[in-house]
Amino acid sequence: HGHRVALRSDLDSLKGRVALLSGGGSGHEPAHAGFIGKGMLTGVIAGAVFTSPAVGSILAAIRAVAQAGTVGTLLIVKNYTGDRLNFGLAREQAQAEGIPVEMVVIGDDSAFTVLKKAGRRGLCGTVLIHKVAGALAEAGVGLEEITKRVSAVAQAMGTLGVSLSSCSVPGSRPTFELAADEVELGLGIHGEAGVRRIKMASADEIVTLMLDHMTASSNVSHVPVRAGSSVVLMVNNLGGLSFLELGIIADAAVRALEGRGVKIARALVGTFMSALEMPGISLTLLLVDEPLLKLIDAETTASAWPNVAKVPVTGRKRSRAAPAEPLEASVSTTAGGLTSKRVVLVLERVCATLLGLEDHLNALDRAAGDGDCGTTHSRAARAIQGWLKEGRLKEGPPPASPTQLLSKLSLLLLEKMGGSSGALYGLFLTAAAQPLKAKTDLPAWSAAMDAGLEAMQKYGKAAPGDRTMLDSLWAAGQELQAWKSPGASLFQVLTKAVQSAEAAAEATKNMEAGAGRASYISSARLDQPDPGAVAAAAVLRAILEALQSPGV
Amino acid sequence: HGHRVALRSDLDSLKGRVALLSGGGSGHEPAHAGFIGKGMLTGVIAGAVFTSPAVGSILAAIRAVAQAGTVGTLLIVKNYTGDRLNFGLAREQAQAEGIPVEMVVIGDDSAFTVLKKAGRRGLCGTVLIHKVAGALAEAGVGLEEITKRVSAVAQAMGTLGVSLSSCSVPGSRPTFELAADEVELGLGIHGEAGVRRIKMASADEIVTLMLDHMTASSNVSHVPVRAGSSVVLMVNNLGGLSFLELGIIADAAVRALEGRGVKIARALVGTFMSALEMPGISLTLLLVDEPLLKLIDAETTASAWPNVAKVPVTGRKRSRAAPAEPLEASVSTTAGGLTSKRVVLVLERVCATLLGLEDHLNALDRAAGDGDCGTTHSRAARAIQGWLKEGRLKEGPPPASPTQLLSKLSLLLLEKMGGSSGALYGLFLTAAAQPLKAKTDLPAWSAAMDAGLEAMQKYGKAAPGDRTMLDSLWAAGQELQAWKSPGASLFQVLTKAVQSAEAAAEATKNMEAGAGRASYISSARLDQPDPGAVAAAAVLRAILEALQSPGV
Repeated sequence: HGHRVALRSDLDSLKGRVALLSGGGSGHEPAHAGFIGKGMLTGVIAGAVFTSPAVGSILAAIRAVAQAGTVGTLLIVKNYTGDRLNFGLAREQAQAEGIPVEMVVIGDDSAFTVLKKAGRRGLCGTVLIHKVAGALAEAGVGLEEITKRVSAVAQAMGTLGVSLSSCSVPGSRPTFELAADEVELGLGIHGEAGVRRIKMASADEIVTLMLDHMTASSNVSHVPVRAGSSVVLMVNNLGGLSFLELGIIADAAVRALEGRGVKIARALVGTFMSALEMPGISLTLLLVDEPLLKLIDAETTASAWPNVAKVPVTGRKRSRAAPAEPLEASVSTTAGGLTSKRVVLVLERVCATLLGLEDHLNALDRAAGDGDCGTTHSRAARAIQGWLKEGRLKEGPPPASPTQLLSKLSLLLLEKMGGSSGALYGLFLTAAAQPLKAKTDLPAWSAAMDAGLEAMQKYGKAAPGDRTMLDSLWAAGQELQAWKSPGASLFQVLTKAVQSAEAAAEATKNMEAGAGRASYISSARLDQPDPGAVAAAAVLRAILEALQSPGV
Repeated sequence: HGHRVALRSDLDSLKGRVALLSGGGSGHEPAHAGFIGKGMLTGVIAGAVFTSPAVGSILAAIRAVAQAGTVGTLLIVKNYTGDRLNFGLAREQAQAEGIPVEMVVIGDDSAFTVLKKAGRRGLCGTVLIHKVAGALAEAGVGLEEITKRVSAVAQAMGTLGVSLSSCSVPGSRPTFELAADEVELGLGIHGEAGVRRIKMASADEIVTLMLDHMTASSNVSHVPVRAGSSVVLMVNNLGGLSFLELGIIADAAVRALEGRGVKIARALVGTFMSALEMPGISLTLLLVDEPLLKLIDAETTASAWPNVAKVPVTGRKRSRAAPAEPLEASVSTTAGGLTSKRVVLVLERVCATLLGLEDHLNALDRAAGDGDCGTTHSRAARAIQGWLKEGRLKEGPPPASPTQLLSKLSLLLLEKMGGSSGALYGLFLTAAAQPLKAKTDLPAWSAAMDAGLEAMQKYGKAAPGDRTMLDSLWAAGQELQAWKSPGASLFQVLTKAVQSAEAAAEATKNMEAGAGRASYISSARLDQPDPGAVAAAAVLRAILEALQSPGV
């Protein structure tokens, strides 16, 4: 009440332990409140955006954790004049009240290559200090020892930022301007300009430049990472960068470091210490040994600390071989009463039909879609023709087992036909192939049609009457039910099915589009039949005619 | 190898369990790869940005998890045509190979108020399905049961997005344009325009509008959240919003829901399902009961799932009283040989001196800083005058215990003087007050000066010779060491100290600024003494003169 202070809700469970308080200006979220929790901070004090918090609030936080029975407080402060003074003052006042308070001032900035009186600025590395101090406090380590340990850790890290533009304090303009092809290197987390402005480059090039700068021994604020070093890598979103880009940078950083012989023990990728909406990142490198890594790995309930796998990044297996395709079962080439020659005849007739319809289908499609329906179907026809030709030369005749045939055609259309039509025909054929595994009699072919139609509706979300290719196929499928009756005639039923499909295709001209691209067109403009339905009906007629043609 | 597929590295530990695969186009990071881990997904298949992945890759992922010994695979697919078709096809092909595969198509979009044939789009709520399914699979539940359970959960949620602008597919322009004062409501996660464009409003107003839209029973895609409902709230960064703004929205959402009598069981705030760099958010509401909540709470190692406190948000104590200030120890009002009247005399003399120097100090400061040094010190003087006057009327004379006096002055300057000077004087006085607790003899006063100087250097990072007020005080402090010798004279030593301080102040004109704002000015331009040093020397002289003036 009355202070911008956030504390652990389970303060009373901390009796006898060291309390850890941090904070500073706001605008760095999730820092620092996101790091409150068991195993990290006890509490934080937040100032206004980019403004150090009031001494009175810092003092109130110290008093609150002291009154909860903690045995002392460590203040973890980023190295900025305002924070040093205000936290320092609160510390002096609390000590005057008899509360043991220590303070570590964190400077992890590796931007400035010459010595600055004020020392290195506190950046994202501060979050690692929260983590290390939190693990020690949770383990019951005393105030003096924690202070000593984290002070040593703070010396072993470096951070460098880079951004595509500045940030804007609410109500103000951006703090600096960059051209579209410029990148600011070594900037602070308050929109301070950086140490260098560079031309836009690839993520790999920028990361290389950053690592060179951060680790060069000629840079007084460098972090001494060398081949053989073991590090924790932090890739921090400064605020407005997309997560995808963050991943690209993280990948570049991992490869670049490993290329230098550096062992990446852990990689933390996310938003830890932001600068409002700044579209940039910072890289932090912390030199670690096994005891320190244990503290980084220790459990915490802090909401903004990521789930990190407790295994090294470097040396971890990062790829596996693609699984082998299952072997095809060998089947008779004459199953289902179809000879390979007849199959070729049917497919060639279907292809010729589709190629002959290309212009007509495109014209129909121009009225309702993007005018490429004929082109798409021709692409399918040419793919099948190519496969038949190749098959005759190299692999022998196409498989005559209906299951194998339909599966092969499915893969071919998926790969070569493209678009939703390719996927939908692929689905239809894959599903239709299944009932033909066990039997290949007429009832099985009817069941195959049913399975194909079902899959098409299920995944494509179209129903009969939606003005799609399903309309033709559905009408045919209804007629093919007759094959399930004993003694049904192949050709009689199939002929009826083709006629029904053609009628259904023609009837789509009066339908409102319920699915597919045409559904975005006003129905008043749709006075031609659906090209997909027309094509499907034509395919069925081609099959019928090829089956009825003189034997081969 | 050869596929854009990410899998758990511990696949072999999943023998006998159900595998969970998800994925879709990229550009939604951390979805979906960030949700791979124990207790969430087994793997994901990623397409190009906003493009459904290839069927072959989906099939490769299904085969890989099947070959690892899982007993079946659930595909968790967002409801988009391309994903439905490609995942559906892979499912059909895998089933044809004898692998048990089920598929749930998630649609949680609450934007469209009238029924769309394709159903609701899949948005951020999909991540909750990953969590629930992951917890069930980890618990050893079977494929059919998981499919049934998550299908039911998917019906009990709704998501609505809002953004300040669109996103840009790499290499392309933004997919829609918004004026600076417009907000797009109900947009998709691929830069699709929304259902409504509204005028910029406060976070509270926008959240209210969103919740109204999402929960209105007149909206066919609403989520039936009512007073008394228990929900999981997800506040999702669509990509480029600052974390600070995300927190403001989360706070508004919590207050708005609680204002409607809705119980918020858990609140997840972060980046879960983004649309590249889109600066917007989505809200997801999932109706929960205790068994479902247990699944949400279950452990996971997925890197992008946040640490969530396993306690309800609603009903949780969210503030505590500020800690009481410690009682002041009662001390003699004549400690240290100073009467209250003499204290008043000293302070009045100091104030008069500073007020008299206002213009001179400002002029000195204009050459090196921002010209307000005199104003700042006058503000301090008037604050002390006001306190003395008030004290005479209400609280009796100012405390004459040196410790209390210096502590009070410290607080006063901190609060009223402002700037770094206020903080530095505050620090100096707080630290100086401590050695005077036990004793108030001359050695103690010298020690007080030492303590003040030490604190000032420690937190202010200035050293003698840096052209700051420390130079005067430091020079005086060196002379005051003489007080530590037995038989030292109060006035003789203090007179020398004041003279030394004045000389040091004068000498700053030849110094290069090493700290403070003047350190950014070229030393060539600094040919006047530092105003802070001049002020400090003047304060010391005022103290000396007031102590020497005829007794009161």
